[in-house]
Amino acid sequence: MPESRSVADAVQAALDAKSKPRGSLGRLEDLAARIAAIRGTEAPGRLRPAIVLAAADHGVAARGVSAYPQEVTGQMLANFASGGAAICVLARCTGAELRVFDLGVASPVAHPAVRDLRIGPGTADLTRGPAMAQDQAAQALAAGRAVAAELAAEGIGVVALGEMGIGNTTSAAALAAALLPAEPEATCGRGTGLDDDGLERKIEAVRTALARNRPDPTDGVATLAALGGFEIGFLAGVAIGAAEHRLVVLLDGFIASAAALVAERIAPGSRDAMIAAHLSPEPGHRLVLDELRLEPLLDLGLRLGEGSGAALALPLLDAALAILDEMATFEGAGVTDAGR
Amino acid sequence: MPESRSVADAVQAALDAKSKPRGSLGRLEDLAARIAAIRGTEAPGRLRPAIVLAAADHGVAARGVSAYPQEVTGQMLANFASGGAAICVLARCTGAELRVFDLGVASPVAHPAVRDLRIGPGTADLTRGPAMAQDQAAQALAAGRAVAAELAAEGIGVVALGEMGIGNTTSAAALAAALLPAEPEATCGRGTGLDDDGLERKIEAVRTALARNRPDPTDGVATLAALGGFEIGFLAGVAIGAAEHRLVVLLDGFIASAAALVAERIAPGSRDAMIAAHLSPEPGHRLVLDELRLEPLLDLGLRLGEGSGAALALPLLDAALAILDEMATFEGAGVTDAGR
Repeated sequence: MPESRSVADAVQAALDAKSKPRGSLGRLEDLAARIAAIRGTEAPGRLRPAIVLAAADHGVAARGVSAYPQEVTGQMLANFASGGAAICVLARCTGAELRVFDLGVASPVAHPAVRDLRIGPGTADLTRGPAMAQDQAAQALAAGRAVAAELAAEGIGVVALGEMGIGNTTSAAALAAALLPAEPEATCGRGTGLDDDGLERKIEAVRTALARNRPDPTDGVATLAALGGFEIGFLAGVAIGAAEHRLVVLLDGFIASAAALVAERIAPGSRDAMIAAHLSPEPGHRLVLDELRLEPLLDLGLRLGEGSGAALALPLLDAALAILDEMATFEGAGVTDAGR
Repeated sequence: MPESRSVADAVQAALDAKSKPRGSLGRLEDLAARIAAIRGTEAPGRLRPAIVLAAADHGVAARGVSAYPQEVTGQMLANFASGGAAICVLARCTGAELRVFDLGVASPVAHPAVRDLRIGPGTADLTRGPAMAQDQAAQALAAGRAVAAELAAEGIGVVALGEMGIGNTTSAAALAAALLPAEPEATCGRGTGLDDDGLERKIEAVRTALARNRPDPTDGVATLAALGGFEIGFLAGVAIGAAEHRLVVLLDGFIASAAALVAERIAPGSRDAMIAAHLSPEPGHRLVLDELRLEPLLDLGLRLGEGSGAALALPLLDAALAILDEMATFEGAGVTDAGR
C-alpha cells in the first residue's frame, strides 16, 4: 500500500482541524488514520463489520492439552448456530454480521447458519507427524481467501477473525514457537483453564511437535501444514484475502493472531491491514502482536476466543470513523483554535 | 449497599453457568457483577445511558494555565448544543442521551439544548482566594443531586460524567492535591496541550491556591468552595445523587474523577456506584482512581474530556449486561461443562 502514508497524513490533518485539542482523542485518531490507509481513502465513511468465526477439531486434543473434551467443539458450533454463545450476543450488541464456518469439526452440525467448508474431521495429532497434508493447508488458505473476496463483494469493510476448536491454543502455540521463533514455554498458556499438569503436557506437546516435524519457519504453508489448525489456516487465508481487498482485519486473541502471523509469513505486508482488538492473558499473544507490530486496543483479561474480543473492539473502530466523518471543525463551529 | 456482595456473587454464579470457560470473559464479568450490585438486582437487564455534560468557566484561566483562551468554553458549549463536538458524535454512536448543562460559563449560550443552571459567570481566581462561596458550592452540589434524581425518575440506568471548562484541569489538580493529598507536581499535567512554561505556571497556581486557601481536606464542601469548579461541584452532586438512586456512575477522565473524589469525601460510599471508563495521560488521574479503588476499562491516551472516554466505554457496559441477560447456559445449549 504505497499511498497509505499520504492517506494517513491527510486524515491526521483533517482530525487536527476538528474542534478539539490536537491529538486529544489519542489512539482513536491513530485508528481513524490506519483504517483510512487500509481502505485507501481519506473518507472511509462508516464500515459494515462481519465476524468470521471458524471452527475445527485438533488431533492433539487427545494429548490432554485442554481443560475441555473434544466433543465441545461441535457442541459449541451448534451453540453458535442457535444464537446462544457469547459471540452471538456480542455480535448483536455491535450490529456485526456473524458468519460461522465449519472447517472440520469431529461431529458436524447440520444447520443453515453453519457453512460447510470441511477439510476433514479434524487435524492429525501434531506430536506424531504433520497436522495436515500440504494440499489441505493450501485448501484452507484458498477457502479463506475466497471468503474474504466474497465479503468484499458484499460491501463488508471490517472482518473480525474468531475461532473455536478444543486444542487450538496448542496448535497456535506451536505455530508461534516455530514462526517467531520462541521457546514453547514462552508461547504456551493455560488456554481455557488448564491446571499445572495440563500446562506441562501442552508445553511438552509443542516441544515434541517441533522436534518431530522440524517445520521450516521461512515456509509459512509448510509450517501451517505441520502444526495445523484447519480453522487457523482458513483465518490466515481470510487475512491474506482481506488485505488484498482492502478490508480491515480485526484480530481477536492468541489463536486469531497466530493465524495472522501465518498470513504475514505467507503474504508479507498482510499485517498492514490488521488491527489488534485486545491483549489476551495467553503469554504468546504479546509476542505475536509485537512481531506483527500491532498494539492491542483493549486489555480486559479476555480468554474466550470466538471473536469475542474483536466484537468488543468494533465500537471503537466505528467511533473513530464517526469522529472523522461527522465532527465539526474549529472553523465550522466558530471555536478559537489556539493550537494551530 | 449491604446486599451488594450477595448480588455480585449471584451474578458470578449465573455467569459461571453460561456456555464458556469460567471467567473467560475477564473484566466483562466483573463489570456485569458490579453493575448488578449497584442496581441491587441479579437481573439488571439492559440500561439506558445518559451523558451529563457540565460546562463552566474558571477564574484561574487568567493565570495562563491553559493552552486555550477562556472564550473557548462558551464556544464549545454552542458546539455541544449544535451537535458538532466530539461528544455529540460519540453519544450518537453509542445511543446515549446527551444532556448539556451550563453551570456558569463567562459567555452564556441561549439554546434549547443547553439547560441553564448557572451559579455565576465563572469561578473566582483560586490563587487569590476561594473559587466560590460556600453557598455556591452547596448550590452546585444540590443541583447535581436534583439532576440525578430526575434521571433516575426518567428511567436512566447509567450516568456518564463529562465536563468542559478552560482552566478546569487546574481546579481538578488543586482538588486532587488537597483531597488525596498529593504534591501539585504529582497532580498537574499538560491538560489540552500546555508547554513546559505553562505546566510550570499551573503547578505554581495550584501551590499558591493551596497555600492561600488552606482547605480542610476532611471538609469536602469547603475544599470544593476553595478550589472550585462550578461544573465539578455539580458533577460531584450528580455522583452523590446517582449513588443514592442506584444509578451506575461512569467516570470520564481526570476532571470527572476529581469530582468523583469530592463526592466520595462528602458522601462516603458514593464510589460504590462508580465505574472508571478510561485512564487519562494526566498524571493525577491514576492517583485519584487508586484512591477511589477503581480500575479503568480503557487506556487509549484520551485527554479531551466532554465525557468522550465514558462514551467510548458505554458499549462495554452494554455488552456485559447483554452477556448476563441473553447468553445460553452450558445446560441450555447442551455443551459439556468440564470446568464444573
